[in-house]
Formats: sequence, structure tokens, C-alpha cells
Amino acid sequence: MKKTYQYYLAILFFFVFTACDSTTKDATEEKEIKTEEKEVKQGPISLVIHGGAGTIKRENMTDEQDAEYRAKLSEALEAGYAKLESGAPAMDAVIAAIQIMEESPLFNAGVGAVFTNEGKNELDAAVMEGKTRNAGAVAGVSTIKSPILAALSVMENSPHVMMSGKGAEQFAAEQGLEIVDPAYFFTQNRYDALQRVKQREEEDGRSAALFEFPDSKFGTVGCVALDKDGNIAAGTSTGGMTNKRYGRIGDAPIIAAGTYADNETCGVSATGHGEYFIRAVVAYDVAAKMKYAGMSLEEASNKIVYEELVDFGGSGGFIALDRAGNISMPFNTSGMYRGYMNEKSSPKVFIYKDEKE
Amino acid sequence: MKKTYQYYLAILFFFVFTACDSTTKDATEEKEIKTEEKEVKQGPISLVIHGGAGTIKRENMTDEQDAEYRAKLSEALEAGYAKLESGAPAMDAVIAAIQIMEESPLFNAGVGAVFTNEGKNELDAAVMEGKTRNAGAVAGVSTIKSPILAALSVMENSPHVMMSGKGAEQFAAEQGLEIVDPAYFFTQNRYDALQRVKQREEEDGRSAALFEFPDSKFGTVGCVALDKDGNIAAGTSTGGMTNKRYGRIGDAPIIAAGTYADNETCGVSATGHGEYFIRAVVAYDVAAKMKYAGMSLEEASNKIVYEELVDFGGSGGFIALDRAGNISMPFNTSGMYRGYMNEKSSPKVFIYKDEKE
Repeated sequence: MKKTYQYYLAILFFFVFTACDSTTKDATEEKEIKTEEKEVKQGPISLVIHGGAGTIKRENMTDEQDAEYRAKLSEALEAGYAKLESGAPAMDAVIAAIQIMEESPLFNAGVGAVFTNEGKNELDAAVMEGKTRNAGAVAGVSTIKSPILAALSVMENSPHVMMSGKGAEQFAAEQGLEIVDPAYFFTQNRYDALQRVKQREEEDGRSAALFEFPDSKFGTVGCVALDKDGNIAAGTSTGGMTNKRYGRIGDAPIIAAGTYADNETCGVSATGHGEYFIRAVVAYDVAAKMKYAGMSLEEASNKIVYEELVDFGGSGGFIALDRAGNISMPFNTSGMYRGYMNEKSSPKVFIYKDEKE
Repeated sequence: MKKTYQYYLAILFFFVFTACDSTTKDATEEKEIKTEEKEVKQGPISLVIHGGAGTIKRENMTDEQDAEYRAKLSEALEAGYAKLESGAPAMDAVIAAIQIMEESPLFNAGVGAVFTNEGKNELDAAVMEGKTRNAGAVAGVSTIKSPILAALSVMENSPHVMMSGKGAEQFAAEQGLEIVDPAYFFTQNRYDALQRVKQREEEDGRSAALFEFPDSKFGTVGCVALDKDGNIAAGTSTGGMTNKRYGRIGDAPIIAAGTYADNETCGVSATGHGEYFIRAVVAYDVAAKMKYAGMSLEEASNKIVYEELVDFGGSGGFIALDRAGNISMPFNTSGMYRGYMNEKSSPKVFIYKDEKE
């Protein structure tokens, strides 16, 4: 009996001890995993946005306009960053930041999109997820309130990567996305801009304004985010070019041209003269230069924007972010609405070329 | 007076002599340039085509079908090669070869294009010129007789790279391209194929046929050519995927995904499950691997098609050609209609995997 008692006691002790031990072990394991995550998965979260590059000069801006842009960029950064801080995936942050800019008439995306030659707003958007290299895009849509959300829906709920025009709108409606009257995107100053460009076109000869963009802003908004799990996501949304011809598709919705993400290298969202960005495969080329030529994000970014695109004749820029959370925001125009936020920094926003980043 | 006479005579002689001298010099210079061109510019002309990759098996083909395909591929090769032999630019050869395949019901491009889910033919095409990296593309067009010609026209006569839908059709009409009734593209067997896929979709559950392509052929036709001046051009034309949703844009009209050309590296035209080809940036990645990783055309081609695309889940293949006239025709499906022609070879055409190239 005594032996049995001792036996049970031994078993009891064994359980108590192993339980304790297991608790201790779990905690240790958790700690180990956390440390490992930090080391391997680049703990830091990071977010970078742009609101378009172009001829954006201090002397052409009132103090009020300057302040308005900075406030809206900060709001977009904070909205995206809040998602990352809450532990949400990078894509959620990208969508949140871009939607704020789509809903603002300040940027050439969503409300405030520029007008086509026919006086319509045709919107394009794309998203890409770095972990899976899944992607979605819509092109030439006029009735979807949030084109970036439609791009996400194409990625998540269709077997396709890119959908255009009425087909994309029909798909978005089926998915329950908010459909609006095309007039929702109308803003008077963008409409006036079209009239000015068309007038200049008439004066200068046919299509002159389409071939040269002396005073253009290439609107477009974009965001690239890195979440706590080391996943990168990128997105771009745009109204395209003022006076573009009916049916024109620019670089924004084209994976590899205006939008790209791969956890192994980087995420990119571009803004600029889309035709050149398509031909130079700008967004993917950043990744290719890192992956194959061993360049850093900064080296690849600078080479493309300040050397290759300049030689090629392509004006604009992009934002990019690598797996370690490093960011780059190169542009070869006089300005680019841009900003970033990470664990070391509150929202930092910039407009002109001469601002110290 | 005598002095003046001598003076004029001297001037006359001077002119006669320098004129003679100048003629001699010009001829020498011309000769020198010609020799230099021959040495530097890789004299050989070369042409490679494809008519689509997919589940193409010997046991499913009658001898007549097999012969029909081979005859049409040879015809396309000869038409393109004749252009190169006559000294025409690579782009002329690309257009000539592709138009023969567009006009044949055997291939999924032009006549014989597959049907969308809605029972329509929506055609896509793209061209790119390696010397300038100019490019043009149309997507989702239903009334342009030769989509590849429309892509060329976008490249040559518009400020844009990519146009879609009605806007592209309107542009093509303005350019004087031949416009046809959408019924022009109808073929009974492609229509029957849609009905079969839709039936299977109904049986297997919603969109099943869109997510898996067990028996699909990814039609598409393409050509890459190298002309006597060392210029590369590439083009792709397609009807897309059977049962694709209205508005879907595949890889063919997307520069860097299905079509790419750069004299510094190579020209590429792809055929396969477009969504994967877009996400993997297939066409440009061949060039990037050559340019940045120092791979040969063959190494880059094989790595992408037999390793990376297989891991990624993307079935299909491509044709490619480098500045020295080397060609590659890799595919990871059971067959790909393909062929090449160069100074050393009469038209060589192949269909199945086991054929020795």
C-alpha cells in the first residue's frame, strides 16, 4: 500500500513537474520564436506612400495647398500604419492608406481623377502581395467607388489578375463593392485642366499635349507596406493622364510596370509617364536588379530613376520598400508627394525635391 | 589680268580635285561602314514562331490535323523569313508570320479565337521593337481583323503603349485598319469547346474550369525575329482563355509578361496560363537574367520554364531569340506548336515534347 502511495505520489510529482517544466519550456520556446522572428522576419513594420510625381514646385503652391497636401499624406500614413501596428497584414495597410487618397480630391485617383480626352474619368488600380506574388488589377473603370478595393477583389475572388472596363465593373458589382455614378469622381479643377490641355493641343497642333507633358502632374497614388510577419504588399491607384485617349491603359494597373511586390526583394509603386514605365518595366526591374545584380534597394532605385529613366526619356518616380524595411522614394521630376512612417519615425511627409528626407 | 586668270584656274582645279577626292573618300567610307556593319551587327537573320502551348498529344491528333498544323507553321515561317531575306525590318517579319496564324482557324488568335464566358471573342495582341524598346498593345478587341496590326499601329501612331476595348477599336478604325463584324472570328469547334467547359463547370461547381486547366490549350500565336541590322522584334496575338470572364486581360498584351524585346538581350513571346505569366513577369525575366545574372538565352529560358514556372504552378512556354540569332523554345506542357528558320536551316516545325529540335 505504501508502495502504491509512493507510486501515485511519484506520478503526481511527475505531472506537476512536467507541467511546470512544460510551462517554463513553452515560455522559453515562445521567447525563442519571438527572437527568431525578430531576427529572421525583420520585426520592423514600415509604410511608404506617394501621391504622384510631376511638376510640383514650391512657387506654384499656396501655403494652404501645401498644408492640405501634407495633412492628407499624414492621414494616409497614419491610417495605414495603424493597421500594421494592430498586427494586420501589409495588404490591409496598403488598402487603408490608398483609400484615403482615393477619397481626396487632391490626388489623381478616385475622386479628383483627371479626365480623358472624351471628358470621362477612367480609373486603373493594382495590388500585389509579396508572399504569394498574387496580384489583381482593374483598368478603365468608371463606376467603382474604390478601384484599389476592386483590384484586391480581382486578386482574392477571381481566377484572373487583370480585368478591364465593363467586365471589371460587372465583377465588382457581383462582389458587392460600392458602385457609384461616374459623376462621383468629377472635380471642377480637373475638368478645367482638361479644357486647358485641349486648348493647348488645338493651338499647338494635333495631339501635341499628348506627346509632351511640360506642366503635367502624373497624379497616381500608391503605397507599399511591410507587416510584422515580414510580408510586403504594394498597391497603386490612378486616374491616368489628363487628355488620355479612350481606352488607354497606363502603367499603374500593369504588374511589373507600375506595381510589384515580392517578399524576396521589394515592393514598388510607381508614378510617372506610364508609357515609359511600361516599356522600361520599372517596378519589376527594381526587384530584378536586387535579385540578379545584387544591388541594394537604394542602388537599384537610383540607377533606374536617375540614370536609366532619364536616358530613356521617362519622367516620374516611385516608392519602394525592401524586406528589412528600408525605403526609397526616388523621382526625376521637380516634386513627388511622398512620405513614410516606421517604428523609428512619426509620419514624415515631403513634396519638393529639395526637402531633406 | 594673267594673274587673275591663274587665280581662277587654281580655284577651279582646287574644286575639281577636292570633288574627286571627296568622291573617293565617300566610297571608301561607305565600304568601311559596310564592313563594320557586317562585323558588329551579327549578320545572321533568324525567325522563331509559336502557335500555342498546352495539352497537345500525338494520340489526340489525326495525321491530317498534324499535317495541317505543320503546313501552316511552315507557311508562317516562310512568310516571315521572306521579309527578313528581302532586307525588311524584323517587325515586318513578325507581323507577316503572325497574320498568317491569325487568319488560320487552327490557332487561338484572330479567326479561331476561343470564346469568353459570354460567348464572345475578345482578342489581345502586342508588339515590341528591340532597338527603341517601343511597344504597342491592344486588349479586349472584337472588331479589328488583325489585332497584331492594331498593336503595331498603337506603337507607331499613338502616344500610348496599351489601348483596350472600344477605345482601341475606335483608334484602329481611325487609323484605317480593317474592321470586321465580330462574327468574323467565329469557329464552330471553339464555340463547342466553350459549351463543354461550361458544362464541366456546372458539374464540377462554380468556376472550377477557370481554376484548373486539365485539358486546355493556351492557343496564342507569337513570333520573334532578328533582321540583318541586328534588330530584334517580338509580337504575340491571342484570343485568351476559353471561358475567360468578360474583360479579362491575359499576359499576351502585357509588355514584360507575354511580349518583350530589347536588342541588348533578347526578344520573347509567351504562351501559357497568362495569370502566372503576368505574376512571374516571364518575358522580361528572360532579359533580366541575361542582363544582370549573365546567363545565356538558353540558361535563362530553361531556368524559368522548367524550374521557376513549374514551382510557381504556371504551365506554358515561350519562344525567344537573342542578338546572335540563338533561339530557345522551352515549354512545360505536353506540346507547343513551334518552329524556326535561319540561314542554316529550312523551316523546322515541331508539335510534341519528344520531337528532337
